[in-house]
Amino acid sequence: MGSRLFLPQGFFINGINSGIADRKKRDIALIHSEVPCVAAGLFTKNRVKAAPVIISKRHLRNGRAQAILVNSGCANACTGNRGMEDVEMMAYDLACQLGIKKEDVLLASTGVIGRFLPMSRVKQGIRKIAETVGNPSKPEFFAEAIMTTDTIPKIISRQFLTQNRKRVAICGLAKGAGMIHPDLATLLCFIITDINIHKSLLQRSLMTAAERSFNSLTIDGDTSTNDSVLILANGRAGNRPINGANQDFLRFQNNLNGVMLGLAELIARDGEGATKLVRIVVKNAESGISAKKMARHIASSSLVKTALYGSDPNWGRLMAAIGSSGVRIDPQRIDIYFGKLQVTRNGEPASYSEREANRILKKKEIEIVIDLKQGRGGAKVYTCDLTPDYVNINSCYSRRPCILIQGGGGSF
Amino acid sequence: MGSRLFLPQGFFINGINSGIADRKKRDIALIHSEVPCVAAGLFTKNRVKAAPVIISKRHLRNGRAQAILVNSGCANACTGNRGMEDVEMMAYDLACQLGIKKEDVLLASTGVIGRFLPMSRVKQGIRKIAETVGNPSKPEFFAEAIMTTDTIPKIISRQFLTQNRKRVAICGLAKGAGMIHPDLATLLCFIITDINIHKSLLQRSLMTAAERSFNSLTIDGDTSTNDSVLILANGRAGNRPINGANQDFLRFQNNLNGVMLGLAELIARDGEGATKLVRIVVKNAESGISAKKMARHIASSSLVKTALYGSDPNWGRLMAAIGSSGVRIDPQRIDIYFGKLQVTRNGEPASYSEREANRILKKKEIEIVIDLKQGRGGAKVYTCDLTPDYVNINSCYSRRPCILIQGGGGSF
Repeated sequence: MGSRLFLPQGFFINGINSGIADRKKRDIALIHSEVPCVAAGLFTKNRVKAAPVIISKRHLRNGRAQAILVNSGCANACTGNRGMEDVEMMAYDLACQLGIKKEDVLLASTGVIGRFLPMSRVKQGIRKIAETVGNPSKPEFFAEAIMTTDTIPKIISRQFLTQNRKRVAICGLAKGAGMIHPDLATLLCFIITDINIHKSLLQRSLMTAAERSFNSLTIDGDTSTNDSVLILANGRAGNRPINGANQDFLRFQNNLNGVMLGLAELIARDGEGATKLVRIVVKNAESGISAKKMARHIASSSLVKTALYGSDPNWGRLMAAIGSSGVRIDPQRIDIYFGKLQVTRNGEPASYSEREANRILKKKEIEIVIDLKQGRGGAKVYTCDLTPDYVNINSCYSRRPCILIQGGGGSF
Repeated sequence: MGSRLFLPQGFFINGINSGIADRKKRDIALIHSEVPCVAAGLFTKNRVKAAPVIISKRHLRNGRAQAILVNSGCANACTGNRGMEDVEMMAYDLACQLGIKKEDVLLASTGVIGRFLPMSRVKQGIRKIAETVGNPSKPEFFAEAIMTTDTIPKIISRQFLTQNRKRVAICGLAKGAGMIHPDLATLLCFIITDINIHKSLLQRSLMTAAERSFNSLTIDGDTSTNDSVLILANGRAGNRPINGANQDFLRFQNNLNGVMLGLAELIARDGEGATKLVRIVVKNAESGISAKKMARHIASSSLVKTALYGSDPNWGRLMAAIGSSGVRIDPQRIDIYFGKLQVTRNGEPASYSEREANRILKKKEIEIVIDLKQGRGGAKVYTCDLTPDYVNINSCYSRRPCILIQGGGGSF
C-alpha cells in the first residue's frame, strides 16, 4: 500500500457490499468527481469483450466522464443483449442518483463469465453507495470491493508540485491476482488525479505508463474479457492547463509511471499462489520490440516458472524459452545472469557455484538477465512463479454460484 | 503399447544401460538396418538447437541413413564446440563398430541442457550395444532407453499389404511426457519401416503424418532444443518401388498417420502429472489454419487446463481463450460443447445441467468442441490437464546431477 496516501481533490471514493457474490465482501465500488473530468481508458484486446467494456469505450468517445462504477462477483461477459441492458441500466441508475449524465458514467465488472448480474441487488447497491457521496472517501473500501482472488488490496499514490507550485495528486487502485482470470475476473485499474490536462495528452500518458507497467506484466499469459484501465483528471489542482509536452507534463508522466508500475508489481507479487516476484530483463536485443517479445515469452513459460518455484538454477529452460520466443538470436552469444551471478556465457555453461545460484533463486524477489549482445534494445517484464497453489486455486472452482473471498489466504 | 507388435524386416533395435544418468536405467538406444535406408526427419524449430540435431540434419541431406543412435540423461544442448565434437565422435565410433559410414548415422539426445556427455561411458555403451547387433530385437528396451520423465514406454506398430501382396510393417517408438521439457528432455520419435519408397515421398508422408499428430499436440506450449522425428525405410518388404502417390502410397500414408497419431495420444495421456487426455476440436472456422491456431491456443491455456483438472464446467475460460487466440471470430455465434452437452449457444449460456457437465469433465478422456459457425475449417488438438503434480515434477529438480526415473510414478 506504500506509506502515505495522497488523494486528489474533488473526488469521492467508496466501496460497499450489495450481496452480489457474498453477504459480507464489498462488491460495489464508486468513484465520483464533483466536476466533469477529462477521461481516458485502455481496454482488453480479447475479441470477446464484456458488456461494461463495450459501454465504457462508447462513453469514453468524447474523452469525458464524471463517475466510475465497478462491481465484483460477476464479469457480465458472454451475456448478450441482456448483459448490455444491465450495464445501461447501471449507468442510468447511477447517473440519476448523482445528477450527472448517463454517458459520463464509466463501468467495469469482474467475476464469473457467462452469468447474469443479480440486478435487483445491484440497483439497491447503487442507491446505497450513491447516498454515501459527500462523506469522507474510503479508498481502502474501494480497493476491497474490486478484489476477487486478490489477497491484498492495491493502492498506490503520489504527489508532486507543478511549476506554478500547485500540488497534484495521483491515486491508482487496482485488482488482478493473476493476469488474467476470465472467470475469477481480471485486471482492473482506476486512476484519479486532480491535474488540469488536455484529453489527448491524458490518453497518451496513460498509454506510455501502461506500456511499462501492465503491458510488462504476465502472470499466466492470458488476456481477459474484462481488462480495463481508466483514468479521470478533474483539474482541481489549479495548475496551468497542460496542452503540450512541457515540464509539468513530464513530471505528471513520471509520477503516473510510478503509480502504475507500483500497482503492476503489487499484482505480480499477489499472483495466484505466487511465492516470488520475478523480473525478466532482456538486454542488448536488436530492438526494444524484440526484447519485449522475448521477455514476455520467457515470463509466460510454465517450465521457467515452475523451475523458479523450486529455486532450480536451471538455465537450460531459459535457453529453450529464448530459442522458441520467435526472436532472431545468435545462441552462441547469449549470457544469462541470476541477479549478478553469471550462469551462461556465450550460450554455454559459465563456471559458477550451483549453491550460490540456488541461494539467489530462493529469494522472494528474483531478477533474471538475458544479455543477447546483438544491439541496444531492452525490456523488463514482471511475473511470478507457478506453484501447486495456482493449480488448486484455479481448479477447485466447480459449481460455486459466485466467488468467495477469504481474507489473507491465497487459496479457497 | 497396442496389442501385437509388427516389426519391419531387416532392422535390429535394442537399448542398454551405460551409466550416463543412472546405474540401472537403460540410456543408450540403437536402430540398425542391414542395408542402407531411405531416410527423412523433422526437427525442432527452436533457434537453440542441440548438437545432435545439427549433426543429424547434416547427415540427412542425402536422404540416406543406416543407423540411429540415441541417448537419454543428457541433452547435449548449449554445449558449444565440445558438444559438436562429442556427437561426431559418437557417430564415428558407432560407424566403426557397425562397418557403416559415419554420415549414415543419425543421432538424438534427451536430458539435461547445458551439461557435457560423460564420453567415456558413452563410448563404452556404444561398443556394448553394437556387439548385440544380430541378436533378436528388443523394441521395449529401446523405448525404455529413450524415456526420461515418461512413465510408460511408447511403441505403436501397424502392418498392411501392398497391391502386389507384400507385407509392409511400420513401427514407431517415441518419448515425451511433456511437450516439451527442455531439460528433462523432449519429444523424440523414431519410425522404422521396410517399405520400398522414394526419399522425397518419405519426407512428404512424414510431414503429413506429423501435422495431424505431433504438430497437433501441446502439453505446456513450449518447444525444445532437441525435438526430432526420424524415419528409416529399408525396402526389405519387396514391394514395387513407390515413386508417386499411388494406391500403395496412400495405404502407407494412412498407416503412418495411425502410428504417429497413436504415439501422440500416448504422449498426451502421459503428460507430466496429467490425469486426463483432452481433445480440443474447433469446427467451422474460416480456415483450417485459423482453426488449428485457435485449438492450439486453447490447449496451451493454463486456466483452461487447470479447470479441466478440477472438472470445472467453466466455459467462460474457453470463451476468453477463444477471444485471445488471435483468430477473427464473431463472439455471438460461438457454440461450445463438453462432449455432446451444449454449454454455450451463440456466445451466451445454454441451458444445461451443471451436474451433467461436471460428470462429463470427470472422465479420463474429454472432448471439447468449439463451433465457430463461420466457415468450413476444422482442427483437432491433443493436450492434457495441468495439475499440482506437473508443478512438482518440474520444480523439484534442483541440483540433481542427472535425471532419475522411477518406474510407474509420475513424480519424483
